[in-house]
Amino acid sequence: MSLHEAAREPLSAQLCVLGVAARSAARALREVTAEAKNAALMAAAAAIRAHSANILAANAEDMTLAKMEGLGAALLDRLALDETRVEAMAKGVEEVAALPDPVGRELARWTRPNGLEIARFSTPIGVIGIIYESRPNVTADAAALCLKSGNAVILRGGSESTRSSGAIFEALRQGLVAANLPVDAIQMIPTTDRAAVGLMLEGLGGTIDLIIPRGGKGLVGRVQQEARVPVLAHLEGICHVYIHEAADLEKARAIVLNAKMRRTGICGAAETLLIDRAVLKSHGLPVLEDLRAAGCEIRADQEVCAMFPSANQASEEDWRTEYLDAIISAKTVSGLDDAIRHIETFGSHHTEAIVTEDTAAAERFLWALDSAIVMWNASTQFADGGEFGMGAEIGIGTGKLHARGPVGVEQLTTFKYIVCGNGQTRP
Amino acid sequence: MSLHEAAREPLSAQLCVLGVAARSAARALREVTAEAKNAALMAAAAAIRAHSANILAANAEDMTLAKMEGLGAALLDRLALDETRVEAMAKGVEEVAALPDPVGRELARWTRPNGLEIARFSTPIGVIGIIYESRPNVTADAAALCLKSGNAVILRGGSESTRSSGAIFEALRQGLVAANLPVDAIQMIPTTDRAAVGLMLEGLGGTIDLIIPRGGKGLVGRVQQEARVPVLAHLEGICHVYIHEAADLEKARAIVLNAKMRRTGICGAAETLLIDRAVLKSHGLPVLEDLRAAGCEIRADQEVCAMFPSANQASEEDWRTEYLDAIISAKTVSGLDDAIRHIETFGSHHTEAIVTEDTAAAERFLWALDSAIVMWNASTQFADGGEFGMGAEIGIGTGKLHARGPVGVEQLTTFKYIVCGNGQTRP
Repeated sequence: MSLHEAAREPLSAQLCVLGVAARSAARALREVTAEAKNAALMAAAAAIRAHSANILAANAEDMTLAKMEGLGAALLDRLALDETRVEAMAKGVEEVAALPDPVGRELARWTRPNGLEIARFSTPIGVIGIIYESRPNVTADAAALCLKSGNAVILRGGSESTRSSGAIFEALRQGLVAANLPVDAIQMIPTTDRAAVGLMLEGLGGTIDLIIPRGGKGLVGRVQQEARVPVLAHLEGICHVYIHEAADLEKARAIVLNAKMRRTGICGAAETLLIDRAVLKSHGLPVLEDLRAAGCEIRADQEVCAMFPSANQASEEDWRTEYLDAIISAKTVSGLDDAIRHIETFGSHHTEAIVTEDTAAAERFLWALDSAIVMWNASTQFADGGEFGMGAEIGIGTGKLHARGPVGVEQLTTFKYIVCGNGQTRP
Repeated sequence: MSLHEAAREPLSAQLCVLGVAARSAARALREVTAEAKNAALMAAAAAIRAHSANILAANAEDMTLAKMEGLGAALLDRLALDETRVEAMAKGVEEVAALPDPVGRELARWTRPNGLEIARFSTPIGVIGIIYESRPNVTADAAALCLKSGNAVILRGGSESTRSSGAIFEALRQGLVAANLPVDAIQMIPTTDRAAVGLMLEGLGGTIDLIIPRGGKGLVGRVQQEARVPVLAHLEGICHVYIHEAADLEKARAIVLNAKMRRTGICGAAETLLIDRAVLKSHGLPVLEDLRAAGCEIRADQEVCAMFPSANQASEEDWRTEYLDAIISAKTVSGLDDAIRHIETFGSHHTEAIVTEDTAAAERFLWALDSAIVMWNASTQFADGGEFGMGAEIGIGTGKLHARGPVGVEQLTTFKYIVCGNGQTRP
């Protein structure tokens, strides 16, 4: 054992105990009714409201320390809670309670010639580890989604939000107690020691089934690189809007402006605009004017720059960049194949949209691209669990295994086969 | 760069080229029709038959070398091909061609209040890496399942079967050429250098989407431990049959004998028999007699040994052992809860069966256990893609993400969302 390992051992043992308790709670949750889970969620929402003063006091301490440590304004905004945000958190938990139960759904059923009846039912995954950053409301969102889907959860928030997250966590546990559910179903790593994240990524002695990172590229990249258990993550949303030569001008203008500027910081915001050369002047120019008028910086290829002098020259790096800001890259393409090639080369398989009145071109675009979400004549900002009608989401998956696109309560389940016979044996 | 890394670099570059070619073929496969894929599979089957003599000659060389290296009888049997096995391989590829196309299925469709139409369609995963051991027929099985599901495949077989697998691989590529599909859709690692496996597990420069190991515990364990890309694997099938106190005696006898002895070497074979104390004499005794008469060794707890003296004393290790042989461990349990507890403690979440006429007890067993497949009054040997009516399978998954239970062509797909609008923007 190295010195480094020796130093970690007590933490490792402590967290394994926590993992074993979560696994045992997960076992109990498999036999819990939808009503009991919903009662716990409603009680948790009530407890969040009742403890609003505690939560805000804890958050004030976090904020004071964060300011002393010189955290930036964006980070401070993510960390800050007020009464409105606490109320939104409680309401969010109630909305999760109101969703249809994702567990025990019959997904398929068939009968074999030998009389065996086979059915596939949704079941909880087990124990889910959530690793997140400064936003303390993730504590409530993530725990609610996990509990609704019958999973135990182990939460690890950012060190700067420890006190806020801890106060929210206490309220959530009161919900479990009130509904007579195992209190270990919601766990929080009781230390800010960064080694704890490493131990979670190793699976806490086989007790964690799935890790979901929520945060920036740095966090998600580290989790994907180091995890020894399955990970459900999205790394980047480099979303494209392609104005095809048969695009309707008004649709193109409305969609591009909305896809880029409605909210620039979400993963479904458009980052690159592809304009068909045939409509560069007729459609590209007014669309770029709209963007500029809305305060968007445009980084463009030479053809666009020649036509639209206020654009800045783009470098190849721009095609690979998720700005999450009022900046868009714009490129001329010589048709559908060129657009598809660009997206496959530089995209992140999140969400892409085509604007066109040509059905055949749309079909080709929708099928040829390997992205989680492909859209025809709609804004990429609809890439969202709520907008899909799936309820609250824990994120948008860009991996290809298990879940892609919005990850809501259904995506936090797995399934099992139940086979019923009357004594059949295999010949 | 360490010396070790320097030595690996040329191999790494060589395999990255192969990965990039596979990725490019996967892109092309996304737009290929079901008819073209099936034509390639039928042509591949024909080529396997036409090249039967080549394949058998290559296999004879592999066998000669394997004998010189002193491989055991079981391994030699897995390696050996004859005309019957080659014909079975060709037929297997034709059967995969005859399956319904797993790609482009509409999995769900709904319309949002704003008029957006959202649909979820099955799509290929992309590039799948298959790492297997001595059985050369896996070359054809795995490649056929991957091609049918629209995926490119990178095959890495055991070094002892290099010549056989290579000859089969050549036949498969002829099928691709005949159907005008990209020949790079089926690739084989052109070296027996073990470092190649490590490179595949790292994802070959981001070109591999999924790794599926097929082989023994050692291989699967290494893959799960080292892979940096998602893995679909089953590690062990420690399957249980539980004779409940309300079991029908004749059903219990037939099911246990079949579950253990029909074929002992498959992952769905029963390894542990749990007998309710209430029926230990009435049911346990005749069941154990049947097993002994069929040549099965019994390793049992004290209560069973006291009643059935020809049983050997079991150690705790026996409850954790996948024998894959004519050996069964037998344990007395004091009811349903005790049986569930034992299976959750020692099982591998593969397949478990209860024998009972009591519906409530069966329901409890089926829902409380967290196994991929749970059965009521049926033999665990039905845990098989073919027996489930799903066609050929690449294995039985015991993980919880993406696919559980039989992994056939449907499980080798992922999905995407296609969203159709008429200019909607998000408010």
